Amino acid sequence: ESITFGVLTISDSCYQEPAKDSSGPRLMSLIRAAFTNAQVVASVLPDERDLIQRELRKWIDRSDVRVIITTGGTGFAPRDVTPEATKPLLDKECMQMSFAIALASLKKTKFAALSRGLCGIAGNTLVLNFPGSERAVVDCFEVVQELLPHALSLISDNVKLVQATHE
Amino acid sequence: ESITFGVLTISDSCYQEPAKDSSGPRLMSLIRAAFTNAQVVASVLPDERDLIQRELRKWIDRSDVRVIITTGGTGFAPRDVTPEATKPLLDKECMQMSFAIALASLKKTKFAALSRGLCGIAGNTLVLNFPGSERAVVDCFEVVQELLPHALSLISDNVKLVQATHE
Amino acid sequence: ESITFGVLTISDSCYQEPAKDSSGPRLMSLIRAAFTNAQVVASVLPDERDLIQRELRKWIDRSDVRVIITTGGTGFAPRDVTPEATKPLLDKECMQMSFAIALASLKKTKFAALSRGLCGIAGNTLVLNFPGSERAVVDCFEVVQELLPHALSLISDNVKLVQATHE
Ligand code: NA
Repeated sequence: ESITFGVLTISDSCYQEPAKDSSGPRLMSLIRAAFTNAQVVASVLPDERDLIQRELRKWIDRSDVRVIITTGGTGFAPRDVTPEATKPLLDKECMQMSFAIALASLKKTKFAALSRGLCGIAGNTLVLNFPGSERAVVDCFEVVQELLPHALSLISDNVKLVQATHE
Repeated sequence: ESITFGVLTISDSCYQEPAKDSSGPRLMSLIRAAFTNAQVVASVLPDERDLIQRELRKWIDRSDVRVIITTGGTGFAPRDVTPEATKPLLDKECMQMSFAIALASLKKTKFAALSRGLCGIAGNTLVLNFPGSERAVVDCFEVVQELLPHALSLISDNVKLVQATHE
Repeated sequence: ESITFGVLTISDSCYQEPAKDSSGPRLMSLIRAAFTNAQVVASVLPDERDLIQRELRKWIDRSDVRVIITTGGTGFAPRDVTPEATKPLLDKECMQMSFAIALASLKKTKFAALSRGLCGIAGNTLVLNFPGSERAVVDCFEVVQELLPHALSLISDNVKLVQATHE
C-alpha cells in the first residue's frame, strides 16, 4: 500500500525553463530513497499566489496525497509568496516543525534566517515549505525525513510510511 | 498571598478514565514543589474545542488564576485541537517562549518537533500548552519554571510568585 | 546612494523623559558603524498602539526607509503592545528571522524567552521589533547586521547596503 507525495517547485524561472529545476527532482529522489512505498507527483509553477493555492488545494483534496513539499518562493523578494499562499489553506500550523528545520538549517548557514517557510496540516495532508535551493532542500529533508513516519501515522491512523533501510 | 494555577488535562481517554491521567497530577506536584504560594485548580476534558475554550475562558476570567497550563491535544492527530482552541482566546502571543520550550525539548527528543503548543497572554493570565506525555510535561515545566516569577510580575504588577528554595 | 533606517523607541518613560532613552541612540550608532551608506531617522513614542502604527505606517510609506527597528514594548506587561501594533502592518512575516534572533539571545540570557518581537516585511521595508534594553539591542543587532545586506537586496532589487570594513 503506497502513499503519494506532492512535490511543487515554485519559481518563475523554472516555470519558464523546467530544465533549470534542480530542487524538485532532487526532492523526488530523496523521497524515493527514504520511503519504499512512496509515489511522487510533481509540478512546476510560477510565483503566483492563485496558481499555487489552486495546485495545493487540488493535492490536499486527493486522499492519496499525504505530504506536499514545496520548494521555492519562501524568501524576501517581492515575488516570494509561497508562505502567504500556503497559510490560508492550513487547518493547523506546526510552528515547532518549522523551528526544528530552521534550527538545523542555521547550523549550516546563517542565511537560513531568511527563509519564511511554514509547516502545517490541511485535511489529511502535511504541507511543508522548503526554500528553493537544492542545498537547502537536502538540509530540510534530512530533518523532516525521520519525523514523517510518526507524523503521518498521527495525521491519519491507518497510514504507514515505510522507511528504506540502507545497510 | 497566594496565586492560582489552572491545570487542564485534555485527552479523550483520560476524560473517560481519569485514573489514566498522569500528566495533570504530575504538573500539579511540580507546581506545588516549585512555588510555595501556589494554589492549583485542575480539570480533565476531552479533545473538544468548545469544551476546552469554555474552561479556559472561565479560568482566564478568574482574577486569582494567573497561569493556565494545558497538557495534551498539541499533536498531529485529527482530534488534537488544543492550540486551535487556545489561539482565539489570546490577547498576545509569546512565540519566543514556545521557541525556548521547543529548543530545550528538541535536545531531549527530535519528536518535540511534533508538538504544536502555543504560549500567550489572555487578560492577566499566562496560558501555556504542553504536550500530553508525563515526560514532556516535566521537560517543559523545567524551562518555564525559572521564567514564571518574572513573567507573572510583568503581566500584573502586584503579583509575586514565591519560588521554593530547596537546600 | 544612501538608504534610510527608522529607529523607533517605544517606551512611556522615555517618551516623558527622552534623555532616558539609551537603546535608541545605541541602535543609531550601531547602524552608522555597520553601514557606511545608512541614514537614520529616529523617534520616541509612548506604548500606545495607534501612535506606534501611525509612525510605522509613515515610515513604511517613505520609499527611502528600507529598515525600521523598534526598541521596547515587546515584553509581557499590559502596556507592551509593539508586536500587536506591528503585526497588522506586515505583508509578510519572517518568523525564522525571529527564531535566529531568539536563538542567539537565549545563549546570553534565558529571559530572551520573554521577548515577543516580530520580524516582517511591509511594502519595501523590513520591520524588526527589538526589546527595550540597551544590552538586548546590541545582541539582536549583531544577529541582524550580517543578514541585512542580503535581505534588503532581496526585498528591492536595486538596493545596496554597504557594509563598513573594520580593519
Ligand atoms: Na519604505
